[in-house]
Amino acid sequence: MVSRIGKEIEISPVELASRMAKKAKINLASGSPDPKLIPVKDIQESYIEVIESYRDKAFSYPGAGGQEDLIREIENYLPFLGLRKGNNEIMVTSGAQHAMELLGKYFLENDVIAVENPTFIETFNALKLRSSVNIPINLDQNGLQIDQLKDILKIISIKLLYVIPNCHNPAGVVLSEDRRKELVELAEKYNFYIIEDDPYRPIAGKVPPPIKYFDKYGRVVYVSSFSKILAPGLRVGFILANKEIAEKIALIEQLDFSTSTINQYVISNLLKKGVITSRMEYIHDYYMKKLNILKDSLIDEGFNDFTRSECGFFQLIDLKKDSWKVFEEALKLGLSFVPASPFFLKGGETMARLSISVATEDEIKTGVKLLKKAISTQ
Amino acid sequence: MVSRIGKEIEISPVELASRMAKKAKINLASGSPDPKLIPVKDIQESYIEVIESYRDKAFSYPGAGGQEDLIREIENYLPFLGLRKGNNEIMVTSGAQHAMELLGKYFLENDVIAVENPTFIETFNALKLRSSVNIPINLDQNGLQIDQLKDILKIISIKLLYVIPNCHNPAGVVLSEDRRKELVELAEKYNFYIIEDDPYRPIAGKVPPPIKYFDKYGRVVYVSSFSKILAPGLRVGFILANKEIAEKIALIEQLDFSTSTINQYVISNLLKKGVITSRMEYIHDYYMKKLNILKDSLIDEGFNDFTRSECGFFQLIDLKKDSWKVFEEALKLGLSFVPASPFFLKGGETMARLSISVATEDEIKTGVKLLKKAISTQ
Repeated sequence: MVSRIGKEIEISPVELASRMAKKAKINLASGSPDPKLIPVKDIQESYIEVIESYRDKAFSYPGAGGQEDLIREIENYLPFLGLRKGNNEIMVTSGAQHAMELLGKYFLENDVIAVENPTFIETFNALKLRSSVNIPINLDQNGLQIDQLKDILKIISIKLLYVIPNCHNPAGVVLSEDRRKELVELAEKYNFYIIEDDPYRPIAGKVPPPIKYFDKYGRVVYVSSFSKILAPGLRVGFILANKEIAEKIALIEQLDFSTSTINQYVISNLLKKGVITSRMEYIHDYYMKKLNILKDSLIDEGFNDFTRSECGFFQLIDLKKDSWKVFEEALKLGLSFVPASPFFLKGGETMARLSISVATEDEIKTGVKLLKKAISTQ
Repeated sequence: MVSRIGKEIEISPVELASRMAKKAKINLASGSPDPKLIPVKDIQESYIEVIESYRDKAFSYPGAGGQEDLIREIENYLPFLGLRKGNNEIMVTSGAQHAMELLGKYFLENDVIAVENPTFIETFNALKLRSSVNIPINLDQNGLQIDQLKDILKIISIKLLYVIPNCHNPAGVVLSEDRRKELVELAEKYNFYIIEDDPYRPIAGKVPPPIKYFDKYGRVVYVSSFSKILAPGLRVGFILANKEIAEKIALIEQLDFSTSTINQYVISNLLKKGVITSRMEYIHDYYMKKLNILKDSLIDEGFNDFTRSECGFFQLIDLKKDSWKVFEEALKLGLSFVPASPFFLKGGETMARLSISVATEDEIKTGVKLLKKAISTQ
């Protein structure tokens, strides 16, 4: 009786685990940025300034494609992400998730696509629900295993590839520069598009330039977000894409027309004042310190066998036991994490995603001890 | 190479006319509420209060389906729209357009649907681009001609019917109470759903209860917006639907995740303080005065042959000449309106939509004179 999306949509297992995890004292489950880092005072000042400067204009209908001041400010912001506008256009969205939904709507109609295994399933859902086949490409320490992709491309034609190049969710790895360059060439050679979902770049520290940076062909659509560097609740992000795609996406955005006008002015104001760019180093260091504590704690507790996360919020580890069962046991001990099987298109039944985003340093240390205890009961 | 939506999406002719109309001095084209009515000070106060009360929580990720305080406040607001919650659920959206997009995604996969002729094409697009056949049902002074619909239903099965019951855009008519009741019975008898798009209800004055009010069967999905009564730029609206539909829509909303958390708190705050409900009568009277001036001016200038608009922003009239040609002539004279053919699934080539929303009383009077002049040159 309803559409394919209506039939297939279901509650995200990540969301489910997060809800169950709410009762736990130690939260190694959250994908949200640390609330302590949200610059409430700066944002409040910005709302006041914007309303006083623009009055009713700040509350009018948003224009298609994004508010002009904001687009100009984002253009100035691109170099901080290792990017330049070039022949591309900027298209404002209601966050990166909304961007992915617009791209799914634009590109896909039961097509064959490729995706990292594991991937961030919540965002990927916007593509998954509109594709017929999802080909998983495994990750290693340097990101997507490009040789696997090449083998696939020799025999199967894909419409697009979805990649999270920096501080991967859930794997924590960073795609190497060589692979970034090669991906662009493969996209041109085999006629597919790359969706480069890069929400962690503003807090990633030193990482190679975006795949989009090497894109001579207009094959890469770059998706960015202010959720990690500023706050998720304003729902503003953007796409950088070639003119044809960006213009179409702006038209498709009229179907939902969801990006708040005033929030666009506020992000623009914060970019102009340097509030966003001046935070990048500090916030990277803040999370890196916690991530290093997590990695050290894991090693201290005897978990040696894991691919080291390089940045962002997450560390993926193999519990060597059914991770949902360990999760249930951990909850009893007051610890939450996310069983990682939902992130995998194949495998992953014993994997766990540990997050340092909202936990304190002490909580991380205690959390790892509790995790070991939870595993030992299995 | 791209999806059906990617192929078929195009710039809305209404948007196009609005852009061309920007240069005109007298604006009878706009579909935006009068900026003079936006309570900038109240909204600013509300942002400050919300940020000071909720701090970082106001900027966290929005939960699926909407923020709890807001849902409670909307429940209290329903009686002001002639509604009660009953067995239904409230689901917060980023405005009514976003609601329509979510509903299109949920219900439609190349289905047959029925729609008023004319209809508001921009909103309807979210349904149109996902349906195979759109059956037009003509309007009269009492709204959708239900006998036409009944004739259709005897021979064709439809998935849903899209209706704008109050202060219709572009026709200005109000659907009669009898027809509202009968629509619910028809939906049950012929197994279809009704999408009741009711953005003008808060400024409609005395109108019959919503179709949803008579819905014993869970067949009606009610869509509301704060754009007309408060301001469009916050992008907050809601759906009232039976539990099954509302829960699915909340999951589908996770695909775009676009509704700003802080703006939900602000709308909740304004509802709680009565800022929204206390404006309803005044704003209705304000627009009615301008609408009456338009109707009187039309009669004064000899346009007698039009179905009188009952509320809202719009009056539809027959120019008896190609309305795009008259539009071009009017622009030269400094007047803009919207040629109404894009609103019609059939016919409408000589129709014009005149709007009183942003024009002053004097501008309305002068505008009608200029319109007559533009017609006479044809």
